[in-house]
Amino acid sequence: MVEPKKEKKERDFSQWYDWILERAEIYDYGRYPIKGMGIWLPYGFQIRKKTIDLIRDLLDSTGHEEILFPLLIPKWMLEKESEHIRGFEEEVFWVTHGGLEELDQKLALRPTSETIITYYESLWYQSYRQLPRKLYQIVSMFRYETKATRPLIRLREVTTFKEAHTIHDTFESAEQQIKEAIDIYKKFFDELGIPYIISKRPDWDKFAGALYTIAFDTMMPDGRTLQIGTVHNLGQSFSKAFNYKIQLKDESFDHPWQTSYGISDRVVATIIGVHGDDNGLVLPPNIAPTQVIVIPIPSSDESETKSIIDYSRKILNELLESKVRAKIDDRSEMTPGEKYYYWEAKGVPVRIEIGSRELRTHNLTVVRRDTLSKITIGEKELINEINHIMNSIQNNLYERAWKDLKQKIYETDNLNEARQYLDKKGIVEIPWCGKESCANKVMESLGAKSLGTPWPSQKISGKKCPICGEKAQTTMRYARQY
Amino acid sequence: MVEPKKEKKERDFSQWYDWILERAEIYDYGRYPIKGMGIWLPYGFQIRKKTIDLIRDLLDSTGHEEILFPLLIPKWMLEKESEHIRGFEEEVFWVTHGGLEELDQKLALRPTSETIITYYESLWYQSYRQLPRKLYQIVSMFRYETKATRPLIRLREVTTFKEAHTIHDTFESAEQQIKEAIDIYKKFFDELGIPYIISKRPDWDKFAGALYTIAFDTMMPDGRTLQIGTVHNLGQSFSKAFNYKIQLKDESFDHPWQTSYGISDRVVATIIGVHGDDNGLVLPPNIAPTQVIVIPIPSSDESETKSIIDYSRKILNELLESKVRAKIDDRSEMTPGEKYYYWEAKGVPVRIEIGSRELRTHNLTVVRRDTLSKITIGEKELINEINHIMNSIQNNLYERAWKDLKQKIYETDNLNEARQYLDKKGIVEIPWCGKESCANKVMESLGAKSLGTPWPSQKISGKKCPICGEKAQTTMRYARQY
Repeated sequence: MVEPKKEKKERDFSQWYDWILERAEIYDYGRYPIKGMGIWLPYGFQIRKKTIDLIRDLLDSTGHEEILFPLLIPKWMLEKESEHIRGFEEEVFWVTHGGLEELDQKLALRPTSETIITYYESLWYQSYRQLPRKLYQIVSMFRYETKATRPLIRLREVTTFKEAHTIHDTFESAEQQIKEAIDIYKKFFDELGIPYIISKRPDWDKFAGALYTIAFDTMMPDGRTLQIGTVHNLGQSFSKAFNYKIQLKDESFDHPWQTSYGISDRVVATIIGVHGDDNGLVLPPNIAPTQVIVIPIPSSDESETKSIIDYSRKILNELLESKVRAKIDDRSEMTPGEKYYYWEAKGVPVRIEIGSRELRTHNLTVVRRDTLSKITIGEKELINEINHIMNSIQNNLYERAWKDLKQKIYETDNLNEARQYLDKKGIVEIPWCGKESCANKVMESLGAKSLGTPWPSQKISGKKCPICGEKAQTTMRYARQY
Repeated sequence: MVEPKKEKKERDFSQWYDWILERAEIYDYGRYPIKGMGIWLPYGFQIRKKTIDLIRDLLDSTGHEEILFPLLIPKWMLEKESEHIRGFEEEVFWVTHGGLEELDQKLALRPTSETIITYYESLWYQSYRQLPRKLYQIVSMFRYETKATRPLIRLREVTTFKEAHTIHDTFESAEQQIKEAIDIYKKFFDELGIPYIISKRPDWDKFAGALYTIAFDTMMPDGRTLQIGTVHNLGQSFSKAFNYKIQLKDESFDHPWQTSYGISDRVVATIIGVHGDDNGLVLPPNIAPTQVIVIPIPSSDESETKSIIDYSRKILNELLESKVRAKIDDRSEMTPGEKYYYWEAKGVPVRIEIGSRELRTHNLTVVRRDTLSKITIGEKELINEINHIMNSIQNNLYERAWKDLKQKIYETDNLNEARQYLDKKGIVEIPWCGKESCANKVMESLGAKSLGTPWPSQKISGKKCPICGEKAQTTMRYARQY
């Protein structure tokens, strides 16, 4: 298969990324007078919505229940879990006034909802019989980022924060939930064709208050990994902090166990970054707001042009009747070439070109966005062929993205080599003894950060930590990170 | 048709309303440590979602485009339109700190979005060729209410704020949009079976910054009207305030014209208040999360019970295959009676009871929630009959609610009579000369508020203003209001 050009994207990802957000009308960023906030434009909003629908379906079908908590959290509630608040206090936006009055308590804009949810769980669930419960909400979340912000990647208002929170009567049940959560996220990213590596974050980089954190990372075209999903086993930290106990099966009382897991706007950033090319966005058909664009090509003969447009509408209607999300672009003020350019930038998976020849032969010219290759299909086979092409695009995006990521993962115990791999926009896996001090030295030497250890955990043998020379327990992954 | 009991609801609506929110697990209110905010519980969330889906479909199918603006609005932007900020400044929540730092500008939690949208429209649209544009977003909106708060009726966080904003090159185009907006809202409330009266709000009660405001009001069971939708012709107030001009068809430049219209959480409050009865919620089938609940009735014979459950599952599957949102309640720890009570409170439109007789005869016992009447249907006719019953419920809810509202609207030019009508939980229409002072005197005398004049406007003749005795231009509506 022909691969479309990716030179600009690879050469200057950051510039390309900003260009595509604007060109494909996804997200208006950089003009809002508050740093780190932007506007979802209609086309971007539809991509976001279809993506949310995917994760919602996965959660609903596994017994998760959608809820909605208030945006504002009183300071005392956020402070209940002390590690947790230490992890967030420098990043919280505070509401201090209502109208012209000063409020009697400071209110935080939700940075995450573990505390508020635990508070309510303690009102709702008193017995193991009511558990497990799996709740989630899709909301805006706020972080007063001091680092440089980037649209959809590092924001002060994350508008697509899907946070799930579960509660269990036993540790084992919570552990089981972690597995389910990871499976759900795998399916989710698989449906988007986004490749990932799953790591157990090192202790020094886990979620504030958690026992441990499992993270999904993907690789952006600039060679930096992006965290796109996290799954936390919270243990009993929050239930203990709220002094919350439930009755267990054996009639004793204990603090319940909790997990939480989240997905953000970054999903859309990765759809753009991983699949896009120099012509613009490339959307997986399952989340493309428009899956097929029909473009009539006018003839020099006016009455023929009319027939071409009528025929194009007929094709459009057939697609719509078969539930294909199709549109026609019959704007008279644009040339076909301009239209190709326009819809390619928007990443529409399939283009059907209809001109004099197509009208005559009833064979349609189809261009697929992922490879920009042309295919001729007979009108009679329209729906079958279009569905076939969309499946093929879906699979191709998945496969080429996975292939690309796998090629970027290197194993070595040599730090010089590791540095070269990182320069080649890679991720390196280095034997690790398990000591934080050794990982720190590797990070410093590489100018990279630790992603964590592979999940599920892998025992390795016969390897040594390149820092202390002791026997390696596992491997640690390092990369340049967002 | 038998009408279910509404004694409690009518006698103490407020208490009944709180009971139903809890009993039907809609909205957890009154336990959150911030006044005027609550939690959408899973069942309530689904009702809210289905309701949002309805309005979204109506807006999408009329060319409205969904977008998403930031929650936070800088103070200077909100202040651009001076009347507008005067209307809101006492009701705004202010963010003043990020982390441990004081922000260099105060940020408002969105009370409404006219200013921020006008700011962006001025960046996006410079020519009449780009207009009209119709944008909308569904978001949380904040008001620091000083009045008594009520769940879903008067909140400090309104989580279901659907605000549409349109922009036009001519006044006529904006006027046309007002008509479309009103039509959309009519359809929306009709689909929910919520009756309404449409009034042009008096000038002293219009939206801050608007030329005029058209409002939809409905009547709650306690005899107070509730504003459930508003449509504003904003004229050029905001485009002038932002010094924003577009090029017109004749190549001159002028400020564009705008409208905005909104719907809130109150929609769900009215679904509860208008349709509910003493047994709980009564949901219109089109927004019921569960449309049909199948309840197997165990027999004393264990093997027969097993057959009943198997048969119930078969019925359930037939319903699901026909896209009916059905569930089975086969919990063993509850009696059928307890289950009836449980699902009636949740307002599930149709219940199918399956016991020994139903198993034997293949005739199913069906209870419709709106009338609590029993119907026997043959298994072979299952899908047709269930769809027929759901349509009938949908229509019955609509008709009885409209009948009820119409009976509560009284015309009189006698203030004593008007007072009696208000005491009978009515709305009164009184001839009006058009002077604010006279309307004020009527309001004072009645202890009621003016809803405005009927829309579309009606000329009346031969009537006199009961205050000044001058010729009445129109009628003014008065009611006790939320």
